[in-house]
Amino acid sequence: MRADARKNRDHLLAVAGAAITEQGVEVSLRDIARRADVGLATLLRHFPTREALLEALLHSSFEELTQSAREFETSSSPEDALVSWLRDCVGWTTEYRGVTVLMAAAIDDTESALHASCVTLRAAGARLLTRAQAAGVARGDVDGADLFALIAMLAWLGDQPSLAPRADHLFQVVADAILVRGTSGRAEG
Amino acid sequence: MRADARKNRDHLLAVAGAAITEQGVEVSLRDIARRADVGLATLLRHFPTREALLEALLHSSFEELTQSAREFETSSSPEDALVSWLRDCVGWTTEYRGVTVLMAAAIDDTESALHASCVTLRAAGARLLTRAQAAGVARGDVDGADLFALIAMLAWLGDQPSLAPRADHLFQVVADAILVRGTSGRAEG
Repeated sequence: MRADARKNRDHLLAVAGAAITEQGVEVSLRDIARRADVGLATLLRHFPTREALLEALLHSSFEELTQSAREFETSSSPEDALVSWLRDCVGWTTEYRGVTVLMAAAIDDTESALHASCVTLRAAGARLLTRAQAAGVARGDVDGADLFALIAMLAWLGDQPSLAPRADHLFQVVADAILVRGTSGRAEG
Repeated sequence: MRADARKNRDHLLAVAGAAITEQGVEVSLRDIARRADVGLATLLRHFPTREALLEALLHSSFEELTQSAREFETSSSPEDALVSWLRDCVGWTTEYRGVTVLMAAAIDDTESALHASCVTLRAAGARLLTRAQAAGVARGDVDGADLFALIAMLAWLGDQPSLAPRADHLFQVVADAILVRGTSGRAEG
């Protein structure tokens, strides 16, 4: 990509990021183009769909979360690694209001520009979960798809103004649901 | 209300119920009026807002859920009563796609036509939860607002096509999170 094309693209991404932070992922592409002072056709030449724009915005975040899963895997106990990574995932989604619904749709839609990133994220979580299960600290009857769904649920909760104040507490409740602690006989698998 | 006015109102409700089941709560009021073969002004005379229309539709369901909470309270063990009622609540929301987001907003919005019903529902759940906590079978650090948020989360999950297949299983995981079983030391409060 030529330097000026790269510069234009970066400008569009910065404007789009600000617009989405303010208005959520449902912000209109026309509105983003207007704020960036370009025509809609120019925006669509860089990002033909809303998903393509979001994928460009989210790509580095997804990579960071996948990378941090690897780091937790070597630096922390299986239980701490799983819970810390889950907290990072849920926390990150609060940056882009409404992204959870799109991620929930993209995980099953191979045509979506977000699909590959979501699958990579789910696999990173599944690895931490399997490690925790092998150590006997996570219940055996949940898998990577359950974990992805739980992250999506908690992220959705944080997006609802009336429920968001409970989000941290309910994160802990849900984390406790996955973990097996003390002498509880909840490790079935 | 005169008999013919009542009949018109019931017709509008039946049409609205079918439209919402098909298209979710975001269906346009104009579309509902068109399907009912009346003008938009007529629809708005009966139901001035979307929330008013939903409240009329949901009112009997809310009453049934509140009534069933009372029945579970006398007929079932504290644990069974709580879990059965939660399952009924989550199951009911699948009837009206998207209603969860509106309920999450209404619980804090005293101006919403859905507010009173949501508060009543939350109180019914809180009573079952308190009973289970008193019997030592539910963790002590969750309250009626947490329960309402958990119901909303699980209902939202069932609304997402890609995540819905995990909904029953994750209902059980979340129910286990609330319950205190066996010799687990998770009953803090």
